[in-house]
Amino acid sequence: MNVRTALVLLALALATIFALVCVLLTRGRAPGACPHQPPAQEDPDDGQSLVFADLTPAELAQVVRYLQGHLGLRLVDAARANPSDNCIASVELQVPAKAEALRFLDGAGARPPREALAVLYLGDQPDPNVTEYVVGPLPTPAYHRDVTVRRYGGKVPYHRRPTLAVEYKQLAGFLKSQVFPAAPSFMRQVMEYDGGSLAALTAAPRGFQSGDRITWFALFQNVSGFFVHPLGLEVLVDHSSLDTSRWAVSRVFYNGQYYGDMVQLESAYMQGRISVEKVRRAPRDGDFSSMKPRAPSAALFPLQYEPQGPRYSVRNNHVLYQAWSFAFGMSVSTGLHLFDIRHKGERVAYEISVQEALSVYGSNCPGGMSTRYMDGSFGIGHYTSPLVRGVDCPYLATYVDVHFLAHSQVPRVSKSALCIFEQNLGSPLRRHYSNLESLYYGGLVNSALVIRSIATVGNYDYVWDFIFYQNGAIEGKVQATGYASSSFFHGDGLRYGNRVWEHTLGTIHTHFINYKVDLDVGGRSESFFTACHYSGKPRCSGALPPVCKVPLNCCRRYSQKQAGCWFPSCERGSETSQLPALLPDPEPRLLQNALEKSCVKAQTRSPAREGSPVPAAGLSKTAAQQQWGIPHMGCLDPHPRLVWDLQGKREIIPWPEVRMKTEVPKLT
Amino acid sequence: MNVRTALVLLALALATIFALVCVLLTRGRAPGACPHQPPAQEDPDDGQSLVFADLTPAELAQVVRYLQGHLGLRLVDAARANPSDNCIASVELQVPAKAEALRFLDGAGARPPREALAVLYLGDQPDPNVTEYVVGPLPTPAYHRDVTVRRYGGKVPYHRRPTLAVEYKQLAGFLKSQVFPAAPSFMRQVMEYDGGSLAALTAAPRGFQSGDRITWFALFQNVSGFFVHPLGLEVLVDHSSLDTSRWAVSRVFYNGQYYGDMVQLESAYMQGRISVEKVRRAPRDGDFSSMKPRAPSAALFPLQYEPQGPRYSVRNNHVLYQAWSFAFGMSVSTGLHLFDIRHKGERVAYEISVQEALSVYGSNCPGGMSTRYMDGSFGIGHYTSPLVRGVDCPYLATYVDVHFLAHSQVPRVSKSALCIFEQNLGSPLRRHYSNLESLYYGGLVNSALVIRSIATVGNYDYVWDFIFYQNGAIEGKVQATGYASSSFFHGDGLRYGNRVWEHTLGTIHTHFINYKVDLDVGGRSESFFTACHYSGKPRCSGALPPVCKVPLNCCRRYSQKQAGCWFPSCERGSETSQLPALLPDPEPRLLQNALEKSCVKAQTRSPAREGSPVPAAGLSKTAAQQQWGIPHMGCLDPHPRLVWDLQGKREIIPWPEVRMKTEVPKLT
Repeated sequence: MNVRTALVLLALALATIFALVCVLLTRGRAPGACPHQPPAQEDPDDGQSLVFADLTPAELAQVVRYLQGHLGLRLVDAARANPSDNCIASVELQVPAKAEALRFLDGAGARPPREALAVLYLGDQPDPNVTEYVVGPLPTPAYHRDVTVRRYGGKVPYHRRPTLAVEYKQLAGFLKSQVFPAAPSFMRQVMEYDGGSLAALTAAPRGFQSGDRITWFALFQNVSGFFVHPLGLEVLVDHSSLDTSRWAVSRVFYNGQYYGDMVQLESAYMQGRISVEKVRRAPRDGDFSSMKPRAPSAALFPLQYEPQGPRYSVRNNHVLYQAWSFAFGMSVSTGLHLFDIRHKGERVAYEISVQEALSVYGSNCPGGMSTRYMDGSFGIGHYTSPLVRGVDCPYLATYVDVHFLAHSQVPRVSKSALCIFEQNLGSPLRRHYSNLESLYYGGLVNSALVIRSIATVGNYDYVWDFIFYQNGAIEGKVQATGYASSSFFHGDGLRYGNRVWEHTLGTIHTHFINYKVDLDVGGRSESFFTACHYSGKPRCSGALPPVCKVPLNCCRRYSQKQAGCWFPSCERGSETSQLPALLPDPEPRLLQNALEKSCVKAQTRSPAREGSPVPAAGLSKTAAQQQWGIPHMGCLDPHPRLVWDLQGKREIIPWPEVRMKTEVPKLT
Repeated sequence: MNVRTALVLLALALATIFALVCVLLTRGRAPGACPHQPPAQEDPDDGQSLVFADLTPAELAQVVRYLQGHLGLRLVDAARANPSDNCIASVELQVPAKAEALRFLDGAGARPPREALAVLYLGDQPDPNVTEYVVGPLPTPAYHRDVTVRRYGGKVPYHRRPTLAVEYKQLAGFLKSQVFPAAPSFMRQVMEYDGGSLAALTAAPRGFQSGDRITWFALFQNVSGFFVHPLGLEVLVDHSSLDTSRWAVSRVFYNGQYYGDMVQLESAYMQGRISVEKVRRAPRDGDFSSMKPRAPSAALFPLQYEPQGPRYSVRNNHVLYQAWSFAFGMSVSTGLHLFDIRHKGERVAYEISVQEALSVYGSNCPGGMSTRYMDGSFGIGHYTSPLVRGVDCPYLATYVDVHFLAHSQVPRVSKSALCIFEQNLGSPLRRHYSNLESLYYGGLVNSALVIRSIATVGNYDYVWDFIFYQNGAIEGKVQATGYASSSFFHGDGLRYGNRVWEHTLGTIHTHFINYKVDLDVGGRSESFFTACHYSGKPRCSGALPPVCKVPLNCCRRYSQKQAGCWFPSCERGSETSQLPALLPDPEPRLLQNALEKSCVKAQTRSPAREGSPVPAAGLSKTAAQQQWGIPHMGCLDPHPRLVWDLQGKREIIPWPEVRMKTEVPKLT
């Protein structure tokens, strides 16, 4: 071979190397050669939806600074305030009045000023009270208006304020330092109390007559899922005084017996006059109440993917999905709300929002029997929880942080507290396989857009969904999971629930879920209807109508007005139209009784009650134990459905259809 | 450069080329390096489930051959039989008696002989009748037993036989050759009949007293989705004679008026004594009733994939999924059935099966007002339709063919008529985000196994699902889609439905869905309960109980026993325990009236009825038209729910939980 040939071959070899390297470098990209993504839907919203956007951390901080500087009051951080202090309980967006918002959205009016609603607990006043201010305009506040009287028809007495996180801490401290030491032997020997082994769960409301601020605390083993580990001890604390050192025990209850106070309990115990029911100590993970998976993780679950990427867009607080668009936000007290819901550009609803989640319990223990939780008073938005990718929502969902200010003067963030995703529903939207006159097939894939938040209010985790279907339907759906509330099992407990563990009574209860649905199909309407939803089969006798019509413009924060009133009193002078009073008979005791009776009745008649009092004949112990796995008991039936009332809107309901449904927690 | 250097370089270059080629060839495989698939679940079923397996095409053919050779009867192919012939109407598996099957499954008995149930229409007999034979043992039959008297308490008269496909053809021929020509001007000028432009839809049942075989046929434009294109003409045909040449028209109805026959109609028309309501001719695709998508296909929908492959197995007719296992099959008349349903190896149900789908209509047209379809008499399994991958079921589902023999002596196949898949449900099975005593999170992905078939019985497509959840719940779910049934809109039609197009009345109706649920939790039980499900709000007055208890061991094939009886008569001597008679008052007319009245009442009271009689004030025409898109009207409410009755089983219901629900067709 001569040099020339060698060089030619070398040149060819180098060219080949170059070509191969090129192929190698570009080849990695080949699998990406998918059909090009569809052009992103153009979002015609020009920042209009921002009128409904939650306040930003900067805005929240601005409002706090403004209030600190302009009220002439000494404001203590709500995270460490005493009842005798003034503090800011919460700050959130003051949603603009509907008329004003509509003028702006529809192009005829200016952008409404951005305002905040601040709720202040004024304990450091001659006349302690709750005051609500509207503060504006943001980002640089220049005015504040006291809206309390307009909203509530008068001043709101201080004792009606919902309990702050710090007050729970103070109450826990009171139990630990004042209450438990008064019965040392009982606490050590029966409760096996070691200073940290107990968890206290609050009942609500806090009393039986106006002015009361007395709360039953039931005591549980402080383990994972403590809600189902009751120990039988319940303590009624009078915390009405603004001076925490004057708080006192009003009553004590243990295993079916009432005592005047802990000293009496201790003395009875020492004299052997107590029927002691000692509960075996549960491990830290709660054993049967542990959230740990019981089986080793098997193969990966089926997952959703989006072959051409998401078919929706989220810009700020505005969502665009096929023919749908809407704005979203989160209220500290009422939770997820949607505004300006449009289909093909046409507004079909001005507002669809969660309003309240009530649960009414029965029990033969005082905490349980008096419990009528109104979760809005704890804060459905306040307790919105971070969403776990792939479990709480699909992996590919869009996650949005929620910023809020509550029980503290510092804005907080709940990371990924909202998720938005499209879900393939797995069955056709419509289909027909023609086998008569002609042979043809037509079918459409069914998918829907879901916006979800999950609020963990104590034991319950409410999964709040709004679902937008291709056929123009909107669904509001709530699923409840988490833990059941429970009482200590004793005496005739089975009349009030199902026994879910040796000493645990899954107490009978009913959920009431309230939505506000302000449809504006074909133009603005002055009225809206309430969609109220109960689970269970409340074959209600007497006063309680089968359709629960809870007025939605209710003050869910200050409901503790009357004796044992679990029912929200109504806000007057609201901008939205007035709804008729809910019930023919406003006497709350009657309602309670009716509800309780109906629930007990339902329990004994419901074929589908979850969990069984005792293992039924023929049911193996193993099966019974599985049945006890994650208990959720009561008079729920497996498919409670929407009961709604339309208030003169019924003729335009068929389109869009609004469905509301709840699902009860699932047994595992 | 000398030769040596050039050669060295050349050698290096070749080595580089070789290395690059190696990289290139192996690199393509890299993306496939997924984690290895989990070991397939071992199916412990040793062919036991085959006792419940549908007959194979070979077995069906064997039975036909056996019957042809051993009955001593001249059997004509049912696909071309005259009423005066003998023919085999259907052959399917004779499910072994429960006791025998259990002895075998539980290891104490021999495999039951494999048997077929053959239904014969014996028209070529001195006493024409329907006879049912059990034929066995397969694969080589050696015996047949006439089980008619044992099953039905006597001979089954011939007039009660469900109509064969060939009889519908004969009826269509009768209309075309005998009926329409009797009113030539009317048919041409009003109906615009050209010999092929009409479709006839049968009403059922076929008469108002025992012995009747008279059927109303309503006439529609023969376009896609003809069910919603009524023309106003309905003809009552008496086809009780076994001699088709003696069939006759008993009555004619057009646009609100009755006529003795077509000649009378023609004469009235020629004399101008008829109020003619001419319907604009619809295009072949039916226009508003077309199944074609209205929008161009956008980006691909989200899809499910299985990162590690399916987590279930299907072997023959046996499904294994996590803790669940069951056998499946398809009955020609009753549809999808499951047997030997086990959880963790323990049998929890012996049988869960679809039994019947009834629909009861109201109308001011004779066909509609007398219609009480019992879809089992048409054949829920017979009309099971091929499933379209990605629309009817997810792409990755497992598809199974169904073989059957009905209305023909030749076995047929419905390709991919069953699908099995796991569906990620998109929301957690359970979750708790603890924010009280301790901070932790626990949650489980929620997925479920679905087995589905879709039966297209005339206008309706019923999507039948049985769903197996991780928490031990089984759900029976039926969704109805396809087309609404309709009447010609005239007079006071709005009392009987909603106007869904210019001349179309979406007629009021109620669906009754019946399941058999034979739970054997903790051991065999002699009783089973019926799960019957109605949609709508039948605020039933008088005789009709709010809970519909249709005995499930009913002969759904021969129900036309009494005057206007839409209600199945009961099979006696069934192997399953006897259920109490359904209704205190067996007078069917009362029931019909009660139902009709209740439906009308429900229609006028239901807030959620689909479709609106007329565009409501404030509702734009465009919206109203969309509302009319794919009509499904009536007194359905959007979330009908299970009404069930437990017959002494209630104490063991909680686990496993069986849910039944229907969903109404969705508007588009």
